[in-house]
Amino acid sequence: MDTAQFGKETSRTGEWVRQANRFTDRITADGSSGHRAEPGRYRLVVSLSCPWAHRSIIVRRLLGLDDAISMAVVDPIRDERGWRFTLDPDGRDPVLGIEYLSEAYLAGDPSYSGRVTVPSIVDTHTGKVITNDYPRITLDLSTEWREFHRSDAPDLYPEHLREEIDAVNDPVFRNVNNGVYRCGFATSQEAYEAAYGDLFAELDRLSERLENRRYLVGDTITEADVRLFTTLVRFDAVYHGHFKCNRNKLSEMPVLWAYARDLFQTPGFGETVDFDHIKRHYYVTHEKINPTGIVPAGPDPSGWHTPHGRS
Amino acid sequence: MDTAQFGKETSRTGEWVRQANRFTDRITADGSSGHRAEPGRYRLVVSLSCPWAHRSIIVRRLLGLDDAISMAVVDPIRDERGWRFTLDPDGRDPVLGIEYLSEAYLAGDPSYSGRVTVPSIVDTHTGKVITNDYPRITLDLSTEWREFHRSDAPDLYPEHLREEIDAVNDPVFRNVNNGVYRCGFATSQEAYEAAYGDLFAELDRLSERLENRRYLVGDTITEADVRLFTTLVRFDAVYHGHFKCNRNKLSEMPVLWAYARDLFQTPGFGETVDFDHIKRHYYVTHEKINPTGIVPAGPDPSGWHTPHGRS
Repeated sequence: MDTAQFGKETSRTGEWVRQANRFTDRITADGSSGHRAEPGRYRLVVSLSCPWAHRSIIVRRLLGLDDAISMAVVDPIRDERGWRFTLDPDGRDPVLGIEYLSEAYLAGDPSYSGRVTVPSIVDTHTGKVITNDYPRITLDLSTEWREFHRSDAPDLYPEHLREEIDAVNDPVFRNVNNGVYRCGFATSQEAYEAAYGDLFAELDRLSERLENRRYLVGDTITEADVRLFTTLVRFDAVYHGHFKCNRNKLSEMPVLWAYARDLFQTPGFGETVDFDHIKRHYYVTHEKINPTGIVPAGPDPSGWHTPHGRS
Repeated sequence: MDTAQFGKETSRTGEWVRQANRFTDRITADGSSGHRAEPGRYRLVVSLSCPWAHRSIIVRRLLGLDDAISMAVVDPIRDERGWRFTLDPDGRDPVLGIEYLSEAYLAGDPSYSGRVTVPSIVDTHTGKVITNDYPRITLDLSTEWREFHRSDAPDLYPEHLREEIDAVNDPVFRNVNNGVYRCGFATSQEAYEAAYGDLFAELDRLSERLENRRYLVGDTITEADVRLFTTLVRFDAVYHGHFKCNRNKLSEMPVLWAYARDLFQTPGFGETVDFDHIKRHYYVTHEKINPTGIVPAGPDPSGWHTPHGRS
C-alpha cells in the first residue's frame, strides 16, 4: 500500500485514517462477477515492502497459484507518480507494458486521484485494474481459485472456522496491521500514544492466545496467521524504530517471536521476505518522518533462522 | 551539549564534526589558573538529557561535591535562544538570575556565536562562564577539588592508571560517545554506515574487555566507566531508534547490559538518570531527524533494576 501521501489521511486530532479501497471488483470461479478465474489472464502487482501486498504473495505461494497468476514486483522506492516498474528491463512491466501502476488505475477509472496501492490485480486483456481490495484478494485466492490450487494446498479459510478467523482478524487489523501505521503516521502525541497502547495491548493478548496453541485458529495455518505474520516480520526492521512501536522488539516477546519464526521457517513465508525492499521503502519513502532518507543498517536478521521450539 | 544546530557542523560528505569547546579556563586547587576551587562560588549548569553534562552530574555526586558546587538544571527543550531556565520559578535561575545560559556565555565573550553547551561552569561572582570544556571539567572535579570531596570519595582518576584511562577513553569517545551522534547526524548513507560500523565494532571490543573484569580500568569505578555509562544508559531510549544505532539494543548485548546495570544500581549513577528529560530532549529538539516531534512511549525501562550478576 502506498503510504507516502498520508497528509490527506490525517484527522484534525492527528490520527491517521486509511483511505477506502477504490477497486472492489472480484474474480470468481463462475465468472458471475464479470471476471472468471482463469490461469494466465490476471497479473498480481505487489511490492515486496508492503505488508498488505505480502499477504497475497504468501497466499499465492501456499496455494500453488504461481503458474496460474503471474506476479509483477514494483520498485520499493516510488517517485511522485507512485509505484513504478523500474526493476524491469526498460522500466516497463513485461506483461502489462506499463511503467507505472497508476496507468492501470487510470485505465480502469480515468478520474481516479486517490493513492495507488498494492496489491492490485490487473486484467492483462484490458490493462485495467480489477481490484486493490487487499482483504478480499487473499480470501478469493483461497475460495474462488480452488480449481487451480496445487493438490495438497492448505485450506486457509475453511468454512467451519470462518467466523473465528474473521473475529481474530478484526482486532488484529485495527490494532496491529493498521495499528503500527496509526503509531507511525500520528501527528499528535495523543493520537500516537493511543495507537501505541492499542498495539501493545493487542500484542499481549495475542501472546497469551498463542502460548498454548501453534496457530491463531484451529490446528493449521490459516488466513489469520498470514495477516499477523506480515506485520510481525516487519516489526523490528521498521515499525520498532521508524514508527516508534518501541515498548519492546518482537524479539523481546518470547511467544510471538517464536510464533513468527515458526511461520518464517515454513515454506511460503520466509522466502517471500525481502528486508532490503522493506527497509528501503519505509525509510526512503516517508520523508515526513525520516527526512534524511538514511536507511538503518540494523537490525541483525539472523535470529529469524534460529530454532523456534514450537510444534 | 546543544546539538540542534548540527547543520553548521556537517562536512561535505555528510559526516558530522563536533565543534571545539570555546571556554577552556580551569578552576584549580591553588588558583593559579585565575579561578580557585572554593565552595559555594561556582554553579554547574547541566541538562539531565545530555550525556556530556551527565558525566559531571555523576562525578559531582560520587565525590560528594553537592554542597560545594551547586547545580542548575535547564529545560530539556530549547527554544531558538538555546538552553533556558524555564523549570525554575519565573523562568530564571535563582542563583545566576538569568533566563538563558547564553547570557553567561555573552557575559564571558560578547562576540560568541557558537553553540551554547552543557555542562558549563559559571562564576557566580561575575556571572561569566568559565568553562564548557566537558572532558576537563570532570577530571578537574576529581583532581583539583580534593579538599572538598567527601572523606570516602573514590579516586576516579588515580595517577597510576591515568595513562590506561586516557587510552580507553580515546576510542570510546570517537566511536561511542561521539559515535552515536555521528550515526544520528550523518546526512549521507555512507557517513552513517561508517559511523555505525565503528560504533558496533567498538561495543564488541568493550564487551570482550568487560567479560572478565567488572570495570574498564583497574578494580574500581573510574572516569572511564562514567564516560561509557552516560552513552550506554541512553542507548535503547534514544540512540537505538532516533540515531539508527540499531544493530541491536544494549539489552541484547549481555556483557555491556550487565555492566551498565551494575553501574546504574551503584549510588551516584541511577538516581541521576532522567529518561523523561532524555527522550523529550532528543525527540523534540532534533527536528531534522524527527520533524513530528513525537516522543516514543517506549522502551520499557524496568530492566535497569534487574539483578546484574557482576561482582
